[in-house]
Amino acid sequence: MSTASGLIQGIRAVTLDDKGSGYLPIDGAAIAFVDGQIRFVGPQERLPMELRDLPAFEGKGALATPGLIDAHTHLVFAGNRAGEYEQRLQGASYADIARAGGGILSTVRATREASPEALYLASLPRAAALVASGCTTLEIKSGYGLSLQDEAKMLRVARRIGTTLGVSVRTTYLGAHALPPEFAGQPDGYISAVCEWLESLHAEGLVDAVDAFCETIAFSPEQTQRVFDAATSLGLPVKLHADQLSDTGGAALVARNGGLSADHVEYTREYAVAQMAKTGTVAMLLPGSYHCLRETQQPPIAEFRKHGVAMGVSTDLNPGTSPLRSLPLAMSLACTHFRLTPEEALRGATQHAAHALGLNDRGVLAPGMRADIALWPIHEPAELCYWLGETTPTALWSEGKRLSRA
Amino acid sequence: MSTASGLIQGIRAVTLDDKGSGYLPIDGAAIAFVDGQIRFVGPQERLPMELRDLPAFEGKGALATPGLIDAHTHLVFAGNRAGEYEQRLQGASYADIARAGGGILSTVRATREASPEALYLASLPRAAALVASGCTTLEIKSGYGLSLQDEAKMLRVARRIGTTLGVSVRTTYLGAHALPPEFAGQPDGYISAVCEWLESLHAEGLVDAVDAFCETIAFSPEQTQRVFDAATSLGLPVKLHADQLSDTGGAALVARNGGLSADHVEYTREYAVAQMAKTGTVAMLLPGSYHCLRETQQPPIAEFRKHGVAMGVSTDLNPGTSPLRSLPLAMSLACTHFRLTPEEALRGATQHAAHALGLNDRGVLAPGMRADIALWPIHEPAELCYWLGETTPTALWSEGKRLSRA
Repeated sequence: MSTASGLIQGIRAVTLDDKGSGYLPIDGAAIAFVDGQIRFVGPQERLPMELRDLPAFEGKGALATPGLIDAHTHLVFAGNRAGEYEQRLQGASYADIARAGGGILSTVRATREASPEALYLASLPRAAALVASGCTTLEIKSGYGLSLQDEAKMLRVARRIGTTLGVSVRTTYLGAHALPPEFAGQPDGYISAVCEWLESLHAEGLVDAVDAFCETIAFSPEQTQRVFDAATSLGLPVKLHADQLSDTGGAALVARNGGLSADHVEYTREYAVAQMAKTGTVAMLLPGSYHCLRETQQPPIAEFRKHGVAMGVSTDLNPGTSPLRSLPLAMSLACTHFRLTPEEALRGATQHAAHALGLNDRGVLAPGMRADIALWPIHEPAELCYWLGETTPTALWSEGKRLSRA
Repeated sequence: MSTASGLIQGIRAVTLDDKGSGYLPIDGAAIAFVDGQIRFVGPQERLPMELRDLPAFEGKGALATPGLIDAHTHLVFAGNRAGEYEQRLQGASYADIARAGGGILSTVRATREASPEALYLASLPRAAALVASGCTTLEIKSGYGLSLQDEAKMLRVARRIGTTLGVSVRTTYLGAHALPPEFAGQPDGYISAVCEWLESLHAEGLVDAVDAFCETIAFSPEQTQRVFDAATSLGLPVKLHADQLSDTGGAALVARNGGLSADHVEYTREYAVAQMAKTGTVAMLLPGSYHCLRETQQPPIAEFRKHGVAMGVSTDLNPGTSPLRSLPLAMSLACTHFRLTPEEALRGATQHAAHALGLNDRGVLAPGMRADIALWPIHEPAELCYWLGETTPTALWSEGKRLSRA
């Protein structure tokens, strides 16, 4: 993809740059970028002379923020689970649905059966919806293939989506998501396979990070550690679905491994928060699944604040527990359910989301950063969380290239 | 507005017509309409010969439903309360905010200060967002003017919005929304003024129905009854903000008055539900304000079902407690928070919403009904509630005229 140079002027800029104005909007601002990289952000009158002749875009008072970063999605899948959702609301129990072939394994079945092209066509509109909601970076996990061939298929589709949409896609290998039927009763054997597949997926360049689902209904801390060891031996960063439904010590485990993020973290306790603070592991809040599951156990927000653990916010877009295709809506849910401030929610979907992906070149508007920029038809950044429904950017740039709405 | 004739074919139609297929989609369906009125809905092969030459639109497998009806909105206002929202999340109390001039009276102040043109320009994008979310009928209330002149200004803006967008707008006079500062300490005197203004607003043709806010923090049942008496004497239907924060007997009161709907109804008890069943008063559920206020008191859904009280679902779009600009998102919130089935939510935003507005010509797809039709890029109607974020119709007709996206 070609990169571009330009000037966005007549905007209110929220840089999130703590050496600069931080969360406070700069009125009458301009952003200049060259070859996809920001060279200047600040009051228009301070724009250096040599940047004044770049091709200009008139912002007309729109609010500029860093392009949003969705750092936790499962958006590549076939089928959906709307039928199951409806049955639950009609009174069916989880057990009824499992007996009828529902649940995560129904998504695995559909994803395995789909051709690469069909999987791509089914998944692309979901990624496009996230981009339309303001995202310029998307993390996409595997985890519905659960065989070497089908995990590879998912990760290749994820890469292809990034190319099509002109946004940055980071792929995460989540072989340790669920136990596939052919390994029933052999979770340790399956973990061996997961570790073996990782080498070949990594050799193909399909893996940016490695994730697992550590939970009583999924994999144990010991099995998770084996996956982490395999990742570490290949130099790949790790993250974890941790402490979502119970305290299995997952957040502490991923922190001990120097992981990028502990995700969900509803049941995480303070000893683990302290460990996360030491290793700089981000607490990735996923209010979509909290909302859809009608969870009442809150993540330990006060403890994260007290220990200075950065909080991220992502959609967790997936067909079972979070069919959520808008990152601003995730931010709003984080404010309503978890009482994050709008500033924390915005930093969580930009600056801290970048760190949760191991990226230091985006998430704030500052010289040297990627020109990933969203313009919004609002005056105050809090409006991103305040309005429910249809807050979509008026313009969006990824690495300096303007995206057309998909 | 001119009406139109046409044929929509190659669709899956959810008619909600209980004499027909009800909630069950009809595959390979067509809808034919002439002069804005539906003439045929059903399997394409049964389309009468004389309707086969109408100009055809290819639905390409999209799901057709009745155009959605948002039967409870306060979308005409100036300013917004994102600042107040942010302060609350930063820890400010309601008392702090009231002392700083916040709350509903800040919206009254801004709305009074706005010129008719400014009020129109501020409100139009919110109405357009609801239309973009699938609505072809919008109810819009006054209630931030609280003077004859400013209530009239709001209602005229509401009418103008309907004309601009080409959708049906029903106006509701809500003079009894809050006590304006100039009547401090004189609620009965204010109610007298509200009743007097009604006559002149009605004479101008600005009032389709009359509403009040019956609550300990607003007006008493006795004051509400005086407003209802004034409405009834003019032949205008009534509805009520009832039992939202406490059980003041509001739902029973509006039912005794033969009202169209009791709205909110979180604290409504079974004796009132039985009265609503007798008078056909719709229970209008407003999950947006329930969600934003983090309310935990559920409306008595089981009792509504038991007594056969129709349940509506609306956005309650307003700047203080429900900045919600998408009716499908309200439907989703009703499923998640109140455990409505997707069928109940869809009927609540179409068929029962029509009844809550006293309209019998829309809300289902059947011969003789208005050609208010939404096409959606989904396969099952449950997906309207299942997906969070960005489920917008691919095409929309209001009285047979195709709407362009605003």
